[in-house]
Amino acid sequence: MKFNFQKVQGGVLAAKGFLAAGGVCGIKESGSPDLGLLFAPQGALCFGAFTRNALCAAPVTLSRSRLVQNGFVRGVVVNSGNANACTGTQGAEDALRMATLTETETGQAEGSFLVCSTGKIGTPLPMDCIEKGIKAQCLRLEQGTGREFSEAILTTDTCVKEVALEVKLEQGSIFIGGCSKGAGMIHPDMATMLAFVTTDLQLSDDFKGEYLEIINESFNAITVDGDTSTNDTSLFFSSGASGISYQSLSLSEKGRVRQAIGEVFAELAKAIVRDGEGATKFVEIRVTNARTRQEARQMGRFVANSKLVKTALFGQDPNWGRIVSAAATCGVVIDPMNLVLRFGELEVFAKGQPLKVNIDELNKIFAEPEILVILDLGLGEAEASTWTCDLSYEYVKINAEYHT
Amino acid sequence: MKFNFQKVQGGVLAAKGFLAAGGVCGIKESGSPDLGLLFAPQGALCFGAFTRNALCAAPVTLSRSRLVQNGFVRGVVVNSGNANACTGTQGAEDALRMATLTETETGQAEGSFLVCSTGKIGTPLPMDCIEKGIKAQCLRLEQGTGREFSEAILTTDTCVKEVALEVKLEQGSIFIGGCSKGAGMIHPDMATMLAFVTTDLQLSDDFKGEYLEIINESFNAITVDGDTSTNDTSLFFSSGASGISYQSLSLSEKGRVRQAIGEVFAELAKAIVRDGEGATKFVEIRVTNARTRQEARQMGRFVANSKLVKTALFGQDPNWGRIVSAAATCGVVIDPMNLVLRFGELEVFAKGQPLKVNIDELNKIFAEPEILVILDLGLGEAEASTWTCDLSYEYVKINAEYHT
Repeated sequence: MKFNFQKVQGGVLAAKGFLAAGGVCGIKESGSPDLGLLFAPQGALCFGAFTRNALCAAPVTLSRSRLVQNGFVRGVVVNSGNANACTGTQGAEDALRMATLTETETGQAEGSFLVCSTGKIGTPLPMDCIEKGIKAQCLRLEQGTGREFSEAILTTDTCVKEVALEVKLEQGSIFIGGCSKGAGMIHPDMATMLAFVTTDLQLSDDFKGEYLEIINESFNAITVDGDTSTNDTSLFFSSGASGISYQSLSLSEKGRVRQAIGEVFAELAKAIVRDGEGATKFVEIRVTNARTRQEARQMGRFVANSKLVKTALFGQDPNWGRIVSAAATCGVVIDPMNLVLRFGELEVFAKGQPLKVNIDELNKIFAEPEILVILDLGLGEAEASTWTCDLSYEYVKINAEYHT
Repeated sequence: MKFNFQKVQGGVLAAKGFLAAGGVCGIKESGSPDLGLLFAPQGALCFGAFTRNALCAAPVTLSRSRLVQNGFVRGVVVNSGNANACTGTQGAEDALRMATLTETETGQAEGSFLVCSTGKIGTPLPMDCIEKGIKAQCLRLEQGTGREFSEAILTTDTCVKEVALEVKLEQGSIFIGGCSKGAGMIHPDMATMLAFVTTDLQLSDDFKGEYLEIINESFNAITVDGDTSTNDTSLFFSSGASGISYQSLSLSEKGRVRQAIGEVFAELAKAIVRDGEGATKFVEIRVTNARTRQEARQMGRFVANSKLVKTALFGQDPNWGRIVSAAATCGVVIDPMNLVLRFGELEVFAKGQPLKVNIDELNKIFAEPEILVILDLGLGEAEASTWTCDLSYEYVKINAEYHT
């Protein structure tokens, strides 16, 4: 992805007004980092997007209700290795205990911390080691790094997913940085997507609409296997420590900032797809000239989740019949005679029939690690992209071979 | 499946009033049978259910419009090896030509035959060999068998799918018989599900509602991979040659006949799942105590299509977290505290938390070739079953390794 802004180091700590720490508390048998803290000593406005799974985990229930009551928080405590999902009343008590202990140790008011958990479903949290871990990391907040926080939230991800941008504005620079963890379900259920983004730009509640749109264009635009976990959470913290407020910006600067925030979220979302289980290809399904963005998204997601399309992509098989067939069955009303399918620039299907294409050119496109699929509906002007990966032997292996 | 009725031989020819034939016309390189005819010399009332894929194939468009105009037909001509889908105006002309030629050769009126095609997408039909094949099979109708018809409709199915029942009624016996072909997509796109059922019971137009309900409980209750092909078609022909009419039956006999027809359809539908690509397990997802059947079906289908659930089943992994998580994210509003998950008799999740189960017992259930998953929503009294198979290496291999 081409960045229009200056990439910088630091992840969630690139923006001023935040502290972070992360380390090993002992949940994971592997001994990998499994407890992280993100702390805004002066507080931060927080926007959250949570899983729509009706069986959402205890920390999701707690964090969501806290954000509804008050969007101004002091931070979040995160554990990996155990999702605290499907754990009943014990789970709710444990999530609350994690928040309360962090609030006590950092000297903050009750209700000021959010909680996220990711990892195994259906097993109670090992509260002994979590409590020790929270105490230890609270003491380390002054010397902690964004990197160690981003490591502590991983489960079976094969790499850290971290990005930060500097946006130079007339009044000075603002920073946006974040990390995410993704689709690794080797364990019984690693549940699953988490993302944390910070900025020192001062945002206010009325940014909520923009935030939800950014989520739609980033974390809601990716799909590895179409399953929604019990723990998916994305949090966006604004400390305002740059002294620059969004509202004070000119219209064009607002546009640039909006774009920069969108790019951080999109980059973190795409990083999850690239590290998708068994993924060998990164695929963008771009639906153009749809009647509405909602319909463009619906079709993109359906095509991206088609097992036939995903296996064809894995097999490097330029099998466009599966793509148009999936597009035509997704529930969006189309005019088959208007439908055009392109791979990048190469048009392969239009006016209800196949076009003569150079098969070598087509095979070359399918052999690339990144593939752009364009479905032009010819019905309107709306557009949406969905990012996904292929379905490989490795995916089946990862998800079938683990035995509980 | 336990039949409450007498199984008989003959497939689509078990019922009186039908002739059939099938053989090799040369579409398939393998030299396997690829052209079949089903003929009702005195005519038959026909009920049809067709794919909802907006890019439906030319024969689907033709057959559907003929049935809308007139439900009384003389039969159907079927080819396998080429789906005549995504073939534009040429495809429409070819489908019409297949019907017209069959009508001429059998001496029937224009518009009296339906057409089905299954096989490769995006390639024009080889009309030369199809025309020769139609002429040859029309001459063989008197000596043809149901078996050869059921062989001629197969693509990459590994076995013939055929069933017939005798129902003894007060006025005499009636017969219901049929065949189906399923989910074999080794070729670029083998498109795909076809089913033909005949009866000599005399039905009238007002059976349409029952027919659609039977389709919902059979072919709409199965899913191999969630993709809907461009050619899926199910046709049900009633010759009335038994001299017994449905309307003349007592209420209890109507019920028995309705059940027998339902069993023939369900058996043919389940046969497709059992022969699903790479399938190693047959799985029933039964959703009980839902508010509506529609919601029970929606959840069943979503769980059945979850890649995480399907790979866990393949891995014989008693990983119930994936099942409840999929159920909770399917769009049906549930009360997590009311949700109960059972494998057969064994309860594993209730009241929002896992139950203590004997892991050996659970492992034994998951090692069986047939698995019954029950999701009890505790919200109402509606129930629906979805039948599916697991997702194996072989599925990925079949769908990835073919190169166009």
